[in-house]
Amino acid sequence: MIVPVDDRGFLLGDGLFETILFEAGKLHHFAAHADRMIRGCAILGLPPPEAQVIEIVALNAVRAAGLTEARAAVRLTWTAGSGGRGLDRPDDPQPRLVVSAAPSAKPVTPARLVTAAIRRNEGSPVSRIKSLNYLDNVLARRAARQAGADEALMLNNRGEIAGGAAANLFWFEGDTLLTPALECGVLDGVMRGLVIDRAARLGIAVHEVTATDLEGATGVFLTNSLIGVRPVHSIDGAPVIAHSAVRRLSSAT
Amino acid sequence: MIVPVDDRGFLLGDGLFETILFEAGKLHHFAAHADRMIRGCAILGLPPPEAQVIEIVALNAVRAAGLTEARAAVRLTWTAGSGGRGLDRPDDPQPRLVVSAAPSAKPVTPARLVTAAIRRNEGSPVSRIKSLNYLDNVLARRAARQAGADEALMLNNRGEIAGGAAANLFWFEGDTLLTPALECGVLDGVMRGLVIDRAARLGIAVHEVTATDLEGATGVFLTNSLIGVRPVHSIDGAPVIAHSAVRRLSSAT
Repeated sequence: MIVPVDDRGFLLGDGLFETILFEAGKLHHFAAHADRMIRGCAILGLPPPEAQVIEIVALNAVRAAGLTEARAAVRLTWTAGSGGRGLDRPDDPQPRLVVSAAPSAKPVTPARLVTAAIRRNEGSPVSRIKSLNYLDNVLARRAARQAGADEALMLNNRGEIAGGAAANLFWFEGDTLLTPALECGVLDGVMRGLVIDRAARLGIAVHEVTATDLEGATGVFLTNSLIGVRPVHSIDGAPVIAHSAVRRLSSAT
Repeated sequence: MIVPVDDRGFLLGDGLFETILFEAGKLHHFAAHADRMIRGCAILGLPPPEAQVIEIVALNAVRAAGLTEARAAVRLTWTAGSGGRGLDRPDDPQPRLVVSAAPSAKPVTPARLVTAAIRRNEGSPVSRIKSLNYLDNVLARRAARQAGADEALMLNNRGEIAGGAAANLFWFEGDTLLTPALECGVLDGVMRGLVIDRAARLGIAVHEVTATDLEGATGVFLTNSLIGVRPVHSIDGAPVIAHSAVRRLSSAT
């Protein structure tokens, strides 16, 4: 599958995407993904896709890749299409939909995090949507890998904790579940929302916070649609103390 | 010309580009562009292109587009290529070069600026290179256009002036030429560097600064490789007072 080189997604990162888990023969949380993509289009000023159309296209991609029996990741990319002049979009942008599916294994080990030097941009709504601008995250992850870790812990320019390079972050303070507020430059993750809802249903107090350190945090974990809930093993080499509720949240998503 | 959909430039914005002016039968400041692309690759951890190769490819693109007699913009895009897993590049990335050429008219009117709500990310080296992550700039420009202006004036998260959405910014304070320091989250523009050098040769004092307002500024102007030097007409509706040295800097580039 190919994209014309004048696609604004390719040229400028002008677009967004979703990564959806296909497992046990179905797309997981499709409605939440479609809803987020449509809300993201509103932020970008792009015509949104139709949820029914992208669901069919997503399932077709799984079939075409021969993955109907597999655990797979479906990626839906929605770009601003071709045309315009430099940064300026055409008056009537015609978005382009690109879909692919690939096998996706679930990580089985807890993640080692190291704090990244690169900061997330709390001053842009782009940090809160799943845009095509992932280079900060690519570089943060790369530095983490080079330091022998699995994932980066990213702060924003104010020094507030934002999350992982490709995951949201949660932790416990006592028996209260905390996660960085979206205003900290945090991706509005589908699994993040599901975990918040599930915690509330389990009777766990959950707060979206502005935090500059993880002192006293226990049961730190990462979330995204492909990994679900992944416990954190250590942060900058310091072991994370477990919290019994993480397993309950994990099995509930 | 097409790109495979698994290209990391398309999927994640994992790559960078140059936009080079072709005019009067030649590429302008090619060496500075090639040098910047190679330095950008070092920041991204990508194998760099060979300057001689991209020069030939750029000139071929001009010829293929039938633009040898025209004023044109040549775009060289250098991505991290295909492969890898999610954010993680393959161990041995094979960059992809994509080239295009298009006619490019020089703007003839001074620019009206309005201050953008979206901030530049001073906490990432990506803000200083010409990466494929231009969505913040696309949105800032879009808001400026909707407000009836030509270009956005972008600040960083600390409230410091960074520049335009697609241009560097200069101004005079008395007879001293000022421009935001790269540490403010500023693109290391080729034309920016040329203007700084030229000012020095003309005996104009030039300083790279951290500034939070443009009070008392005269002769504000924008620079990039395609527009050269473009005077600013007004900022947030307030007219800019001219400075006689702008014309000298303009004709010298």
